[in-house]
Amino acid sequence: MSSIWNRTIKLSIFGESHGVGIGAVLDNLPPGEPIDMNHVLQFMARRAPNSKKSGSTPRTEADQPEILSGMLDGHTTGVPLCAVIRNTNTRSVDYGNITTLARPGHADFTGDIRYQGANDIRGGGHFSGRLTAPLVFAGAICQQILERRGIYCAAHILSIHGVKDQAFDTVSPDLEQMLTIRTKDFPVIDEKAGNSMRVEIEKARLNLDSVGGIIECMVTGVPAGIGSPMFDGMENDIASMIFGIPAVRGIEFGTGFGAAELLGSQHNDPFYMDGDTVKTKTNHHGGILGGITSGMPIHFKVAIKPTASISQEQDTVDYKQHKDEKLVIHGRHDSCIVVRAVPVVEAAANIAVLSQLMQHNALEPLEK
Amino acid sequence: MSSIWNRTIKLSIFGESHGVGIGAVLDNLPPGEPIDMNHVLQFMARRAPNSKKSGSTPRTEADQPEILSGMLDGHTTGVPLCAVIRNTNTRSVDYGNITTLARPGHADFTGDIRYQGANDIRGGGHFSGRLTAPLVFAGAICQQILERRGIYCAAHILSIHGVKDQAFDTVSPDLEQMLTIRTKDFPVIDEKAGNSMRVEIEKARLNLDSVGGIIECMVTGVPAGIGSPMFDGMENDIASMIFGIPAVRGIEFGTGFGAAELLGSQHNDPFYMDGDTVKTKTNHHGGILGGITSGMPIHFKVAIKPTASISQEQDTVDYKQHKDEKLVIHGRHDSCIVVRAVPVVEAAANIAVLSQLMQHNALEPLEK
Amino acid sequence: MSSIWNRTIKLSIFGESHGVGIGAVLDNLPPGEPIDMNHVLQFMARRAPNSKKSGSTPRTEADQPEILSGMLDGHTTGVPLCAVIRNTNTRSVDYGNITTLARPGHADFTGDIRYQGANDIRGGGHFSGRLTAPLVFAGAICQQILERRGIYCAAHILSIHGVKDQAFDTVSPDLEQMLTIRTKDFPVIDEKAGNSMRVEIEKARLNLDSVGGIIECMVTGVPAGIGSPMFDGMENDIASMIFGIPAVRGIEFGTGFGAAELLGSQHNDPFYMDGDTVKTKTNHHGGILGGITSGMPIHFKVAIKPTASISQEQDTVDYKQHKDEKLVIHGRHDSCIVVRAVPVVEAAANIAVLSQLMQHNALEPLEK
Amino acid sequence: MSSIWNRTIKLSIFGESHGVGIGAVLDNLPPGEPIDMNHVLQFMARRAPNSKKSGSTPRTEADQPEILSGMLDGHTTGVPLCAVIRNTNTRSVDYGNITTLARPGHADFTGDIRYQGANDIRGGGHFSGRLTAPLVFAGAICQQILERRGIYCAAHILSIHGVKDQAFDTVSPDLEQMLTIRTKDFPVIDEKAGNSMRVEIEKARLNLDSVGGIIECMVTGVPAGIGSPMFDGMENDIASMIFGIPAVRGIEFGTGFGAAELLGSQHNDPFYMDGDTVKTKTNHHGGILGGITSGMPIHFKVAIKPTASISQEQDTVDYKQHKDEKLVIHGRHDSCIVVRAVPVVEAAANIAVLSQLMQHNALEPLEK
Repeated sequence: MSSIWNRTIKLSIFGESHGVGIGAVLDNLPPGEPIDMNHVLQFMARRAPNSKKSGSTPRTEADQPEILSGMLDGHTTGVPLCAVIRNTNTRSVDYGNITTLARPGHADFTGDIRYQGANDIRGGGHFSGRLTAPLVFAGAICQQILERRGIYCAAHILSIHGVKDQAFDTVSPDLEQMLTIRTKDFPVIDEKAGNSMRVEIEKARLNLDSVGGIIECMVTGVPAGIGSPMFDGMENDIASMIFGIPAVRGIEFGTGFGAAELLGSQHNDPFYMDGDTVKTKTNHHGGILGGITSGMPIHFKVAIKPTASISQEQDTVDYKQHKDEKLVIHGRHDSCIVVRAVPVVEAAANIAVLSQLMQHNALEPLEK
Repeated sequence: MSSIWNRTIKLSIFGESHGVGIGAVLDNLPPGEPIDMNHVLQFMARRAPNSKKSGSTPRTEADQPEILSGMLDGHTTGVPLCAVIRNTNTRSVDYGNITTLARPGHADFTGDIRYQGANDIRGGGHFSGRLTAPLVFAGAICQQILERRGIYCAAHILSIHGVKDQAFDTVSPDLEQMLTIRTKDFPVIDEKAGNSMRVEIEKARLNLDSVGGIIECMVTGVPAGIGSPMFDGMENDIASMIFGIPAVRGIEFGTGFGAAELLGSQHNDPFYMDGDTVKTKTNHHGGILGGITSGMPIHFKVAIKPTASISQEQDTVDYKQHKDEKLVIHGRHDSCIVVRAVPVVEAAANIAVLSQLMQHNALEPLEK
Repeated sequence: MSSIWNRTIKLSIFGESHGVGIGAVLDNLPPGEPIDMNHVLQFMARRAPNSKKSGSTPRTEADQPEILSGMLDGHTTGVPLCAVIRNTNTRSVDYGNITTLARPGHADFTGDIRYQGANDIRGGGHFSGRLTAPLVFAGAICQQILERRGIYCAAHILSIHGVKDQAFDTVSPDLEQMLTIRTKDFPVIDEKAGNSMRVEIEKARLNLDSVGGIIECMVTGVPAGIGSPMFDGMENDIASMIFGIPAVRGIEFGTGFGAAELLGSQHNDPFYMDGDTVKTKTNHHGGILGGITSGMPIHFKVAIKPTASISQEQDTVDYKQHKDEKLVIHGRHDSCIVVRAVPVVEAAANIAVLSQLMQHNALEPLEK
Repeated sequence: MSSIWNRTIKLSIFGESHGVGIGAVLDNLPPGEPIDMNHVLQFMARRAPNSKKSGSTPRTEADQPEILSGMLDGHTTGVPLCAVIRNTNTRSVDYGNITTLARPGHADFTGDIRYQGANDIRGGGHFSGRLTAPLVFAGAICQQILERRGIYCAAHILSIHGVKDQAFDTVSPDLEQMLTIRTKDFPVIDEKAGNSMRVEIEKARLNLDSVGGIIECMVTGVPAGIGSPMFDGMENDIASMIFGIPAVRGIEFGTGFGAAELLGSQHNDPFYMDGDTVKTKTNHHGGILGGITSGMPIHFKVAIKPTASISQEQDTVDYKQHKDEKLVIHGRHDSCIVVRAVPVVEAAANIAVLSQLMQHNALEPLEK
């Protein structure tokens, strides 16, 4: 019923695409953590629409978050941190023709029933991908708290429309590579694969169509022992956050669906001692066993569907009049949202991991 | 931290594999619902180990739940329903040799850190697949409440070790087929595929190995408008419940990861009017748009890893002594748990769907 | 850990007294409810400091809430409603001398430990009574939704420093009186008692001292059957909200502590039929039996301590230097906060009652 | 909606007075804590009905809790601890005549509406005071974990029907006195006052009537800094637990309602340094400032109403037939439940305090 993610860290997200503003309340952050707002803005810029980004809408948004509370002299105070982003560039006129035609793949119809016709549908309202901006803001805050303790998270495009990037090394992760990939406009490991993906995106755009893809995410440095069996485990928390991102269709940890084709003798990761540390030789388990971290990198993949807004004529219904109609969506939309979804997935992972660490009293104290 | 699934329906699961008993408290059920205990037992029997089930451990358990509260004269009272299943057949001696050797793919090592060495590791303790018995009990209760309103859930084995069954028709679901499949010892649609799967399982068993698979689940009859965007949607709730099942490695809704290879024009499901009802011609969206049901069947797939317990010698560590070791697991274990996981996935879906219906005041009242 | 009230209605409150702004996210409101912002502002004005209010600080605040989301064309949309109130009149210099001296009766010392010295202590920060402004905003929204269904809430000053007002008639409530009292600058039933109270307040002010009091609150029109036994009852929810108000020291329902001096034969409220409605002849039970409403008015009282900020010299410690000190608090403060706390108590009751009604599917639908 | 107390510690209580059994699931206990079951049983015996207890029903119950999970070799495992108490002495026939007559002061009528006539009303069902047995069990477990860290909780009868016991010294608490009072059948400090109370109870019994009273509770040894402002503070948690106890009508912290009659200069507790420790000279604040502990003893009082079941003829209604009736309650009931409520209040405090300590990472680790 609510847009609150309610774990040890609590995240309340509010706003509609074409309302006054959007934002987040991030509750129960550890106090006294220095926050570098430039890094926050850089993180947020990775999600922002940008003509340089392949597949991105040309809509430009300043998306400057204003911190209303919870920060003092550049440090968290430990009480709720609220940030607001005002909606400035809202050309509602673009959306005039879709008010009662259900856009296929969108929540127009389901939202209308759910909110009894009262919700703000301009630009998708509260369902808009724009609502991932405050989520990324929140993730950027959490990222700094984690990185201070040597915990790093990075994601990249693993595939777009079937074109595959190289995968992360989830056994001996390359931190340099992780940090580099986060600086890229088109975050792939293999630039050649990236170029082929860009071709797919451009092809879709020219055909008034869209493409989806898969995002791979890895978190390194999380100690062993964080999580729980049953409903409060690391997978549950990450998944519950990830399914808060529009267009996500699936999540898998470690080898995931691929595990269904392996033998136990292949899938089981043998343990070994690396000095005093227990490690596994492979990482099919994605760093989580029984809902609890093993100390190996946390590893998961997320399926992103092709952008639902396409410019081709589509069959649909008028959900108020209850009759069949044809729909052509005009206006701005990405032909591929996977690129911009990469930092959103990272943000979600950062929030979930920080929350779990705090839940288990495992966040190392700040040095004074 | 907890083994409580805390939504509108609350489910608290307790017990260890070799303790006195296991069970569940199911809180906030609607009052006055007739419950047929024979049907509950039939549902539970589908999960129980059984020598007739391919890949199942020969351990037999009566698994007779005793209702302690929340039921009167065969009806729910609306206050917490507690059921207890006593552990009777616990040959702890089998597990004597693994107390400090981490079984690969198991939570022995992660659980030891998490619980500071205090948890009961006999038979996997609270991490044991046996804890799915109370989950299935809870799901069986919810199933009856749902079916009374024309909401049906069925799951089957979609693949084992790469051998594929036919998929559900998620556009025009066949209720007859759904009900039939739930009566099968080896729940597949295509019996020939089933036979090939059985061969895979038997092959694995003979090789002291194990296999995993994919389960497909469908829920029909859920009205449109149930769910929410962000963190409280139908996907989030189903996923949070599904990741409470041991051995689950991934979940995808509708076309899921396959969506990453489709164009938007292929993946978007065109709406049309079927009389007065809004429907879609295809069901790539899995019955959920923006976290809210569309009225089309809810459809998702779950990846189950190969059983972690295999009888081959494996490399591992002694997690107390911190040294490399070899491990041979003796004792009872399934060479494939996918078969027994099918009703567990159904149970999870029933609980999540009932909870969402109640959350949105959409559970039709009982006729008096 | 959090400033989120997390029931069916969720209320997230953020802000510090001297930060950029304060506000609230009100999540899971029913969609389509018309909201009259003038009435909201009138409700909020009752809490605002005002030189006309006896005992009030002369600090004036515009306290104009800006709605960022969740409202469209004067109606709730059903998605999170966020309102922000900017802090404009923050003379931080007043508070310069108290930064390391613990003000007796305040949370300076406890907050410093809790937030490891990182919290914003200017003006009390997140502990400030100013944070009740967003709470009152939220209550004002809920009030309109309730009154549309014939549910009315009013509170008044029952006593100040021992001077007593007449009590509400909780058996046959006088709606006219309830509505009138809400319009008063000094909300009492008996104006003569009110004058005596004002004298007490003025006397305290002249003595550089302060006084406390008791607030009586009543909610009429709530149907029978709303609530639950144990931890999720009407008393639990109201109490959990009321103890979120600074300076509250106690809450009692119905006859409350007075019940300890009655016989069962006196305290038991006899039931009788009033036409087709079950009623009680007396209302010692305060409209709640077993955590569930009886249909009689909900009735409770709240103890408010004397304002902790007084201008007399007080013994205290420097909580950083760990040594005994003398403290004289300068700056603005109310010599009695009971007057301004009255609408805050009403607001809390409105939120809790609306949440319980929605939880039990008992909010009547809007007529279209 | 639920009988789950859901904080860092989670407590699920189930059962009906005349069903098969009652019990509790205590989730998220710290692992490895030794539990002395004899002490648990002694704690529980203080609540049990007992002919030696003044005002107690002669119903005797073995009330032997059976631990089903979460304990191994006398230590908590850290996974859910479930205990079941079977109902053995349930003379349902006693209650035959009250099935449709609402007992004044009871939840028969409100429960019937709430549960749509489906709940088990025998002996009060889930509303029965008997359900405090699992609550006391849970509190007894938590008590041992707290006392191991020097945190002690005791409660006593402060008054019965206006007869007053001496109060605790909440500034310099007397641990000896606290421990002694917990061993008494009739827990008062001043035995003479106790005798007068007994007279009141006996007088009420002879008059087929009942009396109520006030319980005072104190917790010592809790470090400063535990709690939060707003909705997640120490008062909120204690109150939410206390209002889960049947017959509670009010709670006040520190001087409570008495604060309404004090001046600020009287009520403010001056801080001073006691060596390196910040203390207050008085304890009107009840050990909590801004929702956060100050290090002074936590102190609160609870109002208990006179037993609703009295043997005098009472006016009431038949809530099914909707007509006025006369009611005479036969069967077993206490003429005063205050005596037996004392350990229940302690139990509630122990649970809330342990939960808050764990929430703030302030539970000292066990020595190995």
